[in-house]
Amino acid sequence: MSAVDFEGFVHELATVSGQAILPFFRTALGVEDKNSGGAFDPVTAADRAAEQAMRTLIRRHFPSHGVRGEEFADEGLDAEYVWVLDPIDGTKSFITGLPAWGTLIGLCREDQPAYGMMHQPFIGERFYGDGAVSRYRGPAGERRLHARPCGGLDEAILLTTSPLLMDEPDRARYRAVEERVRLPRYGGDCYAYCMLAAGHVDLVIETNLKAFDILPLVPVIEGAGGIVTSWEGTSDLSSGRVIAAGDPRAHEAALKVLQQG
Amino acid sequence: MSAVDFEGFVHELATVSGQAILPFFRTALGVEDKNSGGAFDPVTAADRAAEQAMRTLIRRHFPSHGVRGEEFADEGLDAEYVWVLDPIDGTKSFITGLPAWGTLIGLCREDQPAYGMMHQPFIGERFYGDGAVSRYRGPAGERRLHARPCGGLDEAILLTTSPLLMDEPDRARYRAVEERVRLPRYGGDCYAYCMLAAGHVDLVIETNLKAFDILPLVPVIEGAGGIVTSWEGTSDLSSGRVIAAGDPRAHEAALKVLQQG
Repeated sequence: MSAVDFEGFVHELATVSGQAILPFFRTALGVEDKNSGGAFDPVTAADRAAEQAMRTLIRRHFPSHGVRGEEFADEGLDAEYVWVLDPIDGTKSFITGLPAWGTLIGLCREDQPAYGMMHQPFIGERFYGDGAVSRYRGPAGERRLHARPCGGLDEAILLTTSPLLMDEPDRARYRAVEERVRLPRYGGDCYAYCMLAAGHVDLVIETNLKAFDILPLVPVIEGAGGIVTSWEGTSDLSSGRVIAAGDPRAHEAALKVLQQG
Repeated sequence: MSAVDFEGFVHELATVSGQAILPFFRTALGVEDKNSGGAFDPVTAADRAAEQAMRTLIRRHFPSHGVRGEEFADEGLDAEYVWVLDPIDGTKSFITGLPAWGTLIGLCREDQPAYGMMHQPFIGERFYGDGAVSRYRGPAGERRLHARPCGGLDEAILLTTSPLLMDEPDRARYRAVEERVRLPRYGGDCYAYCMLAAGHVDLVIETNLKAFDILPLVPVIEGAGGIVTSWEGTSDLSSGRVIAAGDPRAHEAALKVLQQG
């Protein structure tokens, strides 16, 4: 069974999670602080309701699969197929009412990202791919996603959610890239990677990403012809320091600056 | 004729401008550089098409009114009623494919903001007000807008489009506020002010705003119970340095820090 056979099921997961989330968006309900006394890290009741809805559907249809989510304990991580779920990627956008958040649904096979989707239920759009082909469905219609060519940093539009999320040494290395690009822009979370897959931006550089923040996006980026690696240039993203590019030339140029600081 | 009588007409302007803009969003069409050799300041063919469509409608229905827009020459600025138009506020979001941009439509009477709307045609939502009452219409239904209470900076969520848009002395003063709030967040453009009017955030602090960037938003903010002034605390926003708050206590506290640096 190839990963692409899961497409219909992933759309179903997107639908049920969206139904669980929307009643909480732009309402005064359920913001809490996960790290009491620590950094401000809001998580909403929507997050839990959506992950619960997706886990229930996965357990019913694929009881042998594992699940790795943000809100509840990992299950069956040694299974051939493991789902990687982030019900609300971009919780800070969510609590400020901005629409730049999304639900991330990924499927790994033998630890490799095999299928992924970003769903934005308020806008009603989905970006999804299997590493070979990526597609879009939303208010702008339905189409293939293609990253765009970009010859070097001076042509590049760079997105990052916020440099404030980086520690100081990483931020200095990030700034060295930022100073060389045509246009840096903040904000985005999962949207940044989807805009790269859709050919609107050229680079996304971030740190401190968790597995569920990035693994579901890998097949979307790669299916659109993009490339995503660690800051060391490897496919192992467990360091949480990620660089994605639509064109290998922009990837190489940015990586060189990042590594030299 | 009170300003609120223009409501139906403003909705019509929103509809025609949205129709003019949408064919250009997330396509490869028409990005150009207005300031050749200067800072990157993209403006799209959509900007012009939408402003042209709105000006045509205004000329037909209210030939005695003035118009002040981003793309074409001012007309009749000494008229009792002057329209203030920004077809795409958030052009950088627009060109990166992110949905955090909007069309701003304002009406001034005797130089005072009397009616305003922010329209996001891709998402299909409108935030509008006349200084006394503000309303929302969109995927989340239809409702009144109310800014929320906020007792001080340590409770406040602060939005700004990007500190990179500020000059260094202003950025230092902005940072002094940023360090004291509960959560700072970048991105937003016109959305930041609408989220303040909708009660999701507490403060918006920006610089370098043009009249058409902010005047259409004033009646929306004030109609929701919010307050918007210059960094000097005055209602004259021509300096382009703007601070908006949902609660006068947060406004006062932030203003004090801004003024002391």
